[in-house]
Amino acid sequence: MVNKKKAVIVGATGIAGQQFVAALQDHPWFDITGLAASERSAGKSYSDALKDPSSGAMRWWCTEQLNERVGKIKVEDGSKIDVSQYDVVFTALESDAAKILEPMYAKEKPVISTASAFRYEDDVPIIIPGVNLEHTELLEAQKKKRGWKGFVTPIPNCTTTGLVATLKPLYDEFGINKVLMTSMQAVSGAGRSPGVPALDILDNIIPFIRGEEEKVEKEVQKILGKLEHDKIHPIDLAVSCTCTRAAVLDGHTEAAFVSLKKKASIDDVKRAFEDAGKELTKLGLPSAPKKFITLHEDPFRPQPRIDRDADGGMTTSVGRIRVDNALENGIKYVLVSHNTKAGAAKGAVLVAEYLVKKGKI
Amino acid sequence: MVNKKKAVIVGATGIAGQQFVAALQDHPWFDITGLAASERSAGKSYSDALKDPSSGAMRWWCTEQLNERVGKIKVEDGSKIDVSQYDVVFTALESDAAKILEPMYAKEKPVISTASAFRYEDDVPIIIPGVNLEHTELLEAQKKKRGWKGFVTPIPNCTTTGLVATLKPLYDEFGINKVLMTSMQAVSGAGRSPGVPALDILDNIIPFIRGEEEKVEKEVQKILGKLEHDKIHPIDLAVSCTCTRAAVLDGHTEAAFVSLKKKASIDDVKRAFEDAGKELTKLGLPSAPKKFITLHEDPFRPQPRIDRDADGGMTTSVGRIRVDNALENGIKYVLVSHNTKAGAAKGAVLVAEYLVKKGKI
Amino acid sequence: MVNKKKAVIVGATGIAGQQFVAALQDHPWFDITGLAASERSAGKSYSDALKDPSSGAMRWWCTEQLNERVGKIKVEDGSKIDVSQYDVVFTALESDAAKILEPMYAKEKPVISTASAFRYEDDVPIIIPGVNLEHTELLEAQKKKRGWKGFVTPIPNCTTTGLVATLKPLYDEFGINKVLMTSMQAVSGAGRSPGVPALDILDNIIPFIRGEEEKVEKEVQKILGKLEHDKIHPIDLAVSCTCTRAAVLDGHTEAAFVSLKKKASIDDVKRAFEDAGKELTKLGLPSAPKKFITLHEDPFRPQPRIDRDADGGMTTSVGRIRVDNALENGIKYVLVSHNTKAGAAKGAVLVAEYLVKKGKI
Amino acid sequence: MVNKKKAVIVGATGIAGQQFVAALQDHPWFDITGLAASERSAGKSYSDALKDPSSGAMRWWCTEQLNERVGKIKVEDGSKIDVSQYDVVFTALESDAAKILEPMYAKEKPVISTASAFRYEDDVPIIIPGVNLEHTELLEAQKKKRGWKGFVTPIPNCTTTGLVATLKPLYDEFGINKVLMTSMQAVSGAGRSPGVPALDILDNIIPFIRGEEEKVEKEVQKILGKLEHDKIHPIDLAVSCTCTRAAVLDGHTEAAFVSLKKKASIDDVKRAFEDAGKELTKLGLPSAPKKFITLHEDPFRPQPRIDRDADGGMTTSVGRIRVDNALENGIKYVLVSHNTKAGAAKGAVLVAEYLVKKGKI
Repeated sequence: MVNKKKAVIVGATGIAGQQFVAALQDHPWFDITGLAASERSAGKSYSDALKDPSSGAMRWWCTEQLNERVGKIKVEDGSKIDVSQYDVVFTALESDAAKILEPMYAKEKPVISTASAFRYEDDVPIIIPGVNLEHTELLEAQKKKRGWKGFVTPIPNCTTTGLVATLKPLYDEFGINKVLMTSMQAVSGAGRSPGVPALDILDNIIPFIRGEEEKVEKEVQKILGKLEHDKIHPIDLAVSCTCTRAAVLDGHTEAAFVSLKKKASIDDVKRAFEDAGKELTKLGLPSAPKKFITLHEDPFRPQPRIDRDADGGMTTSVGRIRVDNALENGIKYVLVSHNTKAGAAKGAVLVAEYLVKKGKI
Repeated sequence: MVNKKKAVIVGATGIAGQQFVAALQDHPWFDITGLAASERSAGKSYSDALKDPSSGAMRWWCTEQLNERVGKIKVEDGSKIDVSQYDVVFTALESDAAKILEPMYAKEKPVISTASAFRYEDDVPIIIPGVNLEHTELLEAQKKKRGWKGFVTPIPNCTTTGLVATLKPLYDEFGINKVLMTSMQAVSGAGRSPGVPALDILDNIIPFIRGEEEKVEKEVQKILGKLEHDKIHPIDLAVSCTCTRAAVLDGHTEAAFVSLKKKASIDDVKRAFEDAGKELTKLGLPSAPKKFITLHEDPFRPQPRIDRDADGGMTTSVGRIRVDNALENGIKYVLVSHNTKAGAAKGAVLVAEYLVKKGKI
Repeated sequence: MVNKKKAVIVGATGIAGQQFVAALQDHPWFDITGLAASERSAGKSYSDALKDPSSGAMRWWCTEQLNERVGKIKVEDGSKIDVSQYDVVFTALESDAAKILEPMYAKEKPVISTASAFRYEDDVPIIIPGVNLEHTELLEAQKKKRGWKGFVTPIPNCTTTGLVATLKPLYDEFGINKVLMTSMQAVSGAGRSPGVPALDILDNIIPFIRGEEEKVEKEVQKILGKLEHDKIHPIDLAVSCTCTRAAVLDGHTEAAFVSLKKKASIDDVKRAFEDAGKELTKLGLPSAPKKFITLHEDPFRPQPRIDRDADGGMTTSVGRIRVDNALENGIKYVLVSHNTKAGAAKGAVLVAEYLVKKGKI
Repeated sequence: MVNKKKAVIVGATGIAGQQFVAALQDHPWFDITGLAASERSAGKSYSDALKDPSSGAMRWWCTEQLNERVGKIKVEDGSKIDVSQYDVVFTALESDAAKILEPMYAKEKPVISTASAFRYEDDVPIIIPGVNLEHTELLEAQKKKRGWKGFVTPIPNCTTTGLVATLKPLYDEFGINKVLMTSMQAVSGAGRSPGVPALDILDNIIPFIRGEEEKVEKEVQKILGKLEHDKIHPIDLAVSCTCTRAAVLDGHTEAAFVSLKKKASIDDVKRAFEDAGKELTKLGLPSAPKKFITLHEDPFRPQPRIDRDADGGMTTSVGRIRVDNALENGIKYVLVSHNTKAGAAKGAVLVAEYLVKKGKI
């Protein structure tokens, strides 16, 4: 791509913002030409903005090395940026800030967001490439309705991502009556400030993550929903979750129990998983996984530490596919999805890649 | 109790056997008068048998201090003990050894076992005090049928214990259609030799424990079953589990989803839990918990590290009781049960206490 | 003791303050009659002040159950309490707040503090019972010099406690040339807000704790120092530390290398450790350990998880005592000390017990 | 390189053997043409030999994917291989097996070993590229003395590697009087069967690793020694260690205190570290790090989880370089070294690369 798209990352100094930097700094299609954060960081170089005030040490949390060129970019105040100079805005903001800033940016430019602020509005799709790319059509209606030149398109909660990736092929092939899911989530999902204290999670499980279960239930219904008359109609699907936190750094593990509408053998289910996301992998998007779902026959897999980074952290690893004898046409399985890659910044970048391909960015 | 019952522990040097020692060494009703293990340990004092051959260091794994008197008992070869000198035999054996040795002991004396060897035989009850004490009646039939003066009564798998403790009051009050459960189990459940390697579980979840799910499903049906015509008739209840291992030392956490036969409000459910096990707590058994089920209103509870030791490790801690919208008359909750106390040796000692009370030991 | 001393705990809602509550709520000599915290908590009952505003769940972090009577005490604003109604003030404050509040209280009453604010002033002793009780004499001079009716007596940093407990008998018996120490410290030492994030410490060691090494070096010199002419004269002893953080909940582990002035055999050293703190244990103080130093012959001990709670968390566990061939008259050993018991509130309570015994409270 | 060297890995199914496979399977200079293990695995394809007998799941522990071609190699019985068909033998054996098998192989071919069996013999060098490549000269003498066509050259214990990598430049520039070191070692250093049980290390530190301290002390003296008259003369240097185990997966952390012969400023020391290993990095060996020692100014670094994989796991990361006031001309610092890369198979491969370059393989 000769002319790379100019990208600005807002909320760039936080952990999710840093993950955007890591996902975009050597990207073949995007150039990071702007970085924004709070007023406190504005005016400093990005490297300086990451420095701990007392020790001077850099607080960069990704495993990827920070690119020197990006480190020198001067950080802007997110509330004052001139978005006209960028082709796309990536936001990694708390919900309250997103509510104010994202519409400001969207008046002019496409906004790809990890925040939940707009996820549940009728004219806002929650895109997972490989699941509901057709929902991107809604963005035109959103622009028209809101009188924006750009749009806001959020990705889902990181716990939704892996679950709905596996539900989609089941839904398409067999129909789904109900879903029951228990998650064992990584601490990185809670961010860093303050995040999960070591005192809480060492030698422990925490059986509650505020707001998480409701988000997953609602988002699954919407992502599997139908776009009709400029609106997404969530499907009527009973989804019930228990979300817990475990002493895992990255990678959410989820134990799913699914009642299908149509009886399916384990081999049928595996075939559906194998075929999932084919239309995505054909598109040749740089951040797309080679396999949308990676199947494991080893009953001890998937495991978050071993499988989270498979296929660039963008595949959903699935194993232990078995008949469930408690539900009608029941099956059960365990999945692992990388919450800070597929489920966060890198997932958002994949959405942007698709929109570039479609000429919407 | 003036005349304490004479107890021998077989498999006394292993981790489960040590837990029997810890539970019995200062017991008001039992006296440890014998200890048995493999031929290799026979003839040594118990303290010496626990010594690491290369360093001479004691390999005692319980937090309770080993009683000096017990440390001096000479260990016997488990395959050669004369059980006539004891009133009761506690066994902590691998299933294969239990199959051979437990009937040998039961010819003469009551055998309380943590092994699975006899759990699934028709004339063998799996007792959990507070749930199915009436099943102890079957022991008379067992003695008669097998021509034994004693009997074998095993406790369930440690993952069954907490689950069935919470299902019992629901079953009695409202009836149960189906149960779906995901466990996050402690590493102590796998024992020590070799147990779970640190390399496998640090920063990880292992989604499989061999044989565990089948055991839980079968044992729940039997423990809730009806004793009729000298046989336990397992109930016809669909139970479906996914059992995983987490980086927790002690205490199994289980996320349960239950479909009730009769609609019940959350308050009804809480009341049923509050009232559970009342007949047990009235008996005044030394190892019984004060509350059979301990309810938590704090949504961040129960947690294994914080709640496992509540009430001597003998209560089942339950929280996050909510409506489940996916199942018919669905409720869901999270429980924590101490796998090496209520779910192992101390649970077996509680069974023995009941049998003493009933004159069967 | 018929007339218990009336105690107020300032900073009572934080984790260190809660540990004071746990150590004092059933104390034979003290009665908690007041609790103070920030303005925000003032006016609420202690139980209410501990409640999480959003979930209503109690944020009580100790393993001991909170006493119902204490939960009902109305919390006061620490900056406005009338100390005349108490016999002693226990403070668990950040250094900045301690600088302001502690002198205010000390004008009237004895203040036992866990803060570092006054530790390094000439007329302030840092007491560890078993090591330098004679330094309590300095409190009279402090009162006179400052014109206070009370005094401030801080305990040392939690990392100093175990080290100096083992150095004292060596110093007295053989003299010490130099000390080199590497610590592996528990996360509870960093408190809870924010404390150590799980993201930082899982599968990791952090090789730095701000300010810690300097504190240990300085405090060791002062605690072993001589009280003369109303001043403590720190000894001239080279102490060099590397302080690291490990994935341990409670209990600091320290690997010490010590060069003695006089050659001593390993048996001499063990004897010195065995005899340490005898004058303390004779006093019959309620929180004192039975053994001041607990020796281990097993080379795999001491371990923080297994040994931290020994003797009520008030003993220092020592093992791996060996000759060190790099230092002159070198010995080396490993110690474990409970950082939130001996090294914090319970250690401070032990100081108060001594002062009661001596009639100074 | 047109003609790759034919390599056989003995002990290929264990964790250290797998690490050899990972390091060699895509190597530009070596071709894995043989794999050997115990009799039990002989005759199976390598993939089949790694399969768990009960579940059929592959027990491959490296993060690198196993190369399909290598998976198909038929495993030989290590006690019966014909080494004449290989150019070099890499061994990952227990010490007892190494004592018997390595001389058998060395009669014909060069043997690069991770075992300690021959480390302490006079005519056997312990090579760390970047530290003592000149010791490879001894191999000729070894061949002559033993009448072998090949030779045995072991790498050091994984705890020695990082320490001696940092001592070498200090020794050359300033001279060293004494070294005191405390390690916090990763669980992977103990292997897998059984390795460190999770029950031992969660929420814990284990203060002892059998034999480790003696090895480090001896190996440092030998590796820094002088080769003269066909013998390595260990230097007379006092080295004293305390080796502990921490809840870390990979990467040994070591806190070193060093007394130099000549006074050196911190800047002098940093310069010596910066310049270390230059002759190695110039050679262009495929597995060599770009920087032999990687310096950190951030006081919170190095950390094992963050720094172990730097530079392919082959650099030694060093930080917290400070003056030590307890030792004469004292300095202190913390290092992290990857115990299963630089300290094991990949370190051995680097030795082999050098020997190829020198025409000795």
